[in-house]
Amino acid sequence: MNYSKRIEQALEEAVARAEAPGAPPKLAEAIRYAVFPGGARVRPHLCIAVAEATGGSAPGLVDSAAAAIELLHCASLVHDDLPCFDDADIRRGQPSVHKAYSEPLAVLAGDAMIIMAFEALARGGVAAPNRVGRLLTTISRSVGMPYGITAGQAWESEDHADLAEYHRAKTGSLFVAATTAGAQAAGADPHPWKALGDTLGEAYQVADDIRDVTSTEEELGKPLNQDSNLGRPSVVQEFGLDGAILKLEGLLTDAIDSIPSCEGRRGLQDLVRVQAKRLMPQCGARDRVMAHSV
Amino acid sequence: MNYSKRIEQALEEAVARAEAPGAPPKLAEAIRYAVFPGGARVRPHLCIAVAEATGGSAPGLVDSAAAAIELLHCASLVHDDLPCFDDADIRRGQPSVHKAYSEPLAVLAGDAMIIMAFEALARGGVAAPNRVGRLLTTISRSVGMPYGITAGQAWESEDHADLAEYHRAKTGSLFVAATTAGAQAAGADPHPWKALGDTLGEAYQVADDIRDVTSTEEELGKPLNQDSNLGRPSVVQEFGLDGAILKLEGLLTDAIDSIPSCEGRRGLQDLVRVQAKRLMPQCGARDRVMAHSV
Repeated sequence: MNYSKRIEQALEEAVARAEAPGAPPKLAEAIRYAVFPGGARVRPHLCIAVAEATGGSAPGLVDSAAAAIELLHCASLVHDDLPCFDDADIRRGQPSVHKAYSEPLAVLAGDAMIIMAFEALARGGVAAPNRVGRLLTTISRSVGMPYGITAGQAWESEDHADLAEYHRAKTGSLFVAATTAGAQAAGADPHPWKALGDTLGEAYQVADDIRDVTSTEEELGKPLNQDSNLGRPSVVQEFGLDGAILKLEGLLTDAIDSIPSCEGRRGLQDLVRVQAKRLMPQCGARDRVMAHSV
Repeated sequence: MNYSKRIEQALEEAVARAEAPGAPPKLAEAIRYAVFPGGARVRPHLCIAVAEATGGSAPGLVDSAAAAIELLHCASLVHDDLPCFDDADIRRGQPSVHKAYSEPLAVLAGDAMIIMAFEALARGGVAAPNRVGRLLTTISRSVGMPYGITAGQAWESEDHADLAEYHRAKTGSLFVAATTAGAQAAGADPHPWKALGDTLGEAYQVADDIRDVTSTEEELGKPLNQDSNLGRPSVVQEFGLDGAILKLEGLLTDAIDSIPSCEGRRGLQDLVRVQAKRLMPQCGARDRVMAHSV
């Protein structure tokens, strides 16, 4: 089964459980709306790809870890879009969850998806009970306090924030969870996989900052210029567009080089190269911005 | 060490981790504010009391489960108080988290506390790794979809809700988690402990509905008549005050009778009797309402 099928199947299983008879129907609907159809599912792909590259065991637990990570990512998007944060009306080209279902249901959908992530992990862990505790630690740290996604988001409420620390918490942490949990779930040592998560996470953040100024709203599926409109620290703001693109190229090379020696190193490097191409801004987009800024 | 000390110590450990150097200071502060000083800590007391009554092992894991349950309870209070739900300015006699720290930090504090709960479980599980998966399932189900706290809260967004189902999800589920996770963490069979959690949970909900109409705002530490002001289903509304008090008495008797045969049955029954006295409305409070309604 290819990675996409494994991911969608694991997510479907988690979401279907939340829709069991007796569930409050609107919240169940809001959760499905927040999870399907997804974006690129980059994090769960990375999780499964690392697990496969290590040649490890327990694919059921690997899929659960991948689904947990994607559910946590989706939950963070739903809460980030709320009126008290980004107040974003659009996400993935359609109304954001609070716009489509109300603010209370968006708060609850995010809460429920965080919990569903951990429940999925418990379910997958039946096959390898001794791995559950460590996986739980890896994944919960990547989204909680003091260095996970919630911490990253909270830096926006502080008067002073270190840009690197902010990005590492808000974006990098879940990429690190994807690579290290992938290894852990498969029964391999997670430590050599931290660098790949770190550099890819930073690359995605830089690519996101670039897209925020080079894309059209249609391409992006969400409002443009959110970073500058919200006074949020951004790599483009700090280094300029050309500086940001140079930084992105360097990070992607570092990511590919960082992949530790293992059975599937070659295949994983190819996979990251393909992803890297998708991340680089297209010439047209870059020229459009340059023309505007003249 | 007495139960209160064990609970406060386990909570302190979890909160201190969220305050590690490099954490965003305001969110760290908001989390501490939401957890300390606590209310009666009824759920974690129940969790430890059941574990002790079974005569089980792994007190470290028991304390982690108790702390996890209390953190999830505190998280639900922080989110319930948000402007889009109860819009409550006061909680435990002081400004609610969003009033004291802002709405974004209240959303994030709730999110972070949900995650901290699961992380605490992973930490406690090092002593008994094989119990972590099942505990994780028990606790996550009690707060998630389709029958946990988030589901209970979501019934308020539906046009029609079954009162019993609503209360079971919103309040009962975490009491069931407290008794069954207490047994599970200690290595005992959780099933015989479900009835105690169920009936105590229902008793607390009925007591809460009664207090909502019989207390002064000072006694309650939060706004009065929230149930009726928010058009929320309430036992007092359905059965009248006398009917509600009769129901409460019956539930407390059932709870005491339901305690399964075990080493510490007698002691646990005494403990529930003491708690039961605290739950019954005082004569003065009841008379005050009766006089008002004449």
